[in-house]
Amino acid sequence: MTTTAPGYTFDATLDRSPVTMDQLAELEASVLWSDDDREALRRAGEILVPQTEQILDVWYGFVGGNAHLVAAFAGADGQPSGEYLGAVRERFGLWIRDVCERDHDQQWLDYQNEVALRHHTSKKNATDEVDSPAGYVPLAHLIALIVPITVTIRPFLANGEPDAAAVDAMYQAWFKAVTLTVALWAHPYAPDTW
Amino acid sequence: MTTTAPGYTFDATLDRSPVTMDQLAELEASVLWSDDDREALRRAGEILVPQTEQILDVWYGFVGGNAHLVAAFAGADGQPSGEYLGAVRERFGLWIRDVCERDHDQQWLDYQNEVALRHHTSKKNATDEVDSPAGYVPLAHLIALIVPITVTIRPFLANGEPDAAAVDAMYQAWFKAVTLTVALWAHPYAPDTW
Repeated sequence: MTTTAPGYTFDATLDRSPVTMDQLAELEASVLWSDDDREALRRAGEILVPQTEQILDVWYGFVGGNAHLVAAFAGADGQPSGEYLGAVRERFGLWIRDVCERDHDQQWLDYQNEVALRHHTSKKNATDEVDSPAGYVPLAHLIALIVPITVTIRPFLANGEPDAAAVDAMYQAWFKAVTLTVALWAHPYAPDTW
Repeated sequence: MTTTAPGYTFDATLDRSPVTMDQLAELEASVLWSDDDREALRRAGEILVPQTEQILDVWYGFVGGNAHLVAAFAGADGQPSGEYLGAVRERFGLWIRDVCERDHDQQWLDYQNEVALRHHTSKKNATDEVDSPAGYVPLAHLIALIVPITVTIRPFLANGEPDAAAVDAMYQAWFKAVTLTVALWAHPYAPDTW
């Protein structure tokens, strides 16, 4: 497992998120986040990180099979760009690790803001220097993808944990963390009514 | 179970949704929606609709216990308005039924647009003629509430169905439908990048 990738700037000096730690705490309350979820996700990380490539194969298979989703990865010729898909894939793998392992501190919050901007017109295509006709990831699909990014993770959890209740706990924690992340990534789309 | 409520205008002549049926089909693909989910939700409706008041008790208990959520129901004095909470509650109950039973046709899509506008600055407080300082439901919490609205439904499904696999199927279908709905309700918040 790589520990960094081009464009992965979690540990860099980042712009401050417009979302405050107090607002983050409210969002955590809205998704029923608890210390038990943090524990469960750390355990999930031990199981999921070694399976990162297989998980990405499932997700990329799904995106590749849906023209309206792969459109976000169009290159200058309007066709899916292998280079762009590959560059994002590396960071997506690190995202799996980060969801499981990182604390929700100011640095984490600031990086969520950076990633949010990279989905939005503000910064899309800049990190990978792609001349893409896709100027943003549509908000509707950012939200909708909570489902496949959640439900596809369960069999990977079950691969590493025989106890169904423990799998459930990790699965719920993953669901909460993914939804929380999407809520944060929605900020640039509606800064005044977020 | 009531079949209508003040402000419930599903069957009225509604403004056309800015979302097309083709866009709806793409969103359905993004949430992995299938005919099996429609079937599972119809069965879920048989189980959930008779438990509507108990489900609403759980949801309202959660909202009432979180100051940042109940703030959406503030009346003119800034305090939670019992009248406003009650009026929304009636329609929320009908929403449970509609999630389970309604086809995703043009009329359904148009009503999702109407409800979306009622969360947004466009129309919030108008239906119930409330003079509320809360001008919109924050987009972040609209997204975040996918979690509690999903995970709290499972025990109600299990109350009416002993087979765990059948409960799972209904639960996944509910999760997909709720996420799809939130994606649609996000439209007024970011019409240009939706």
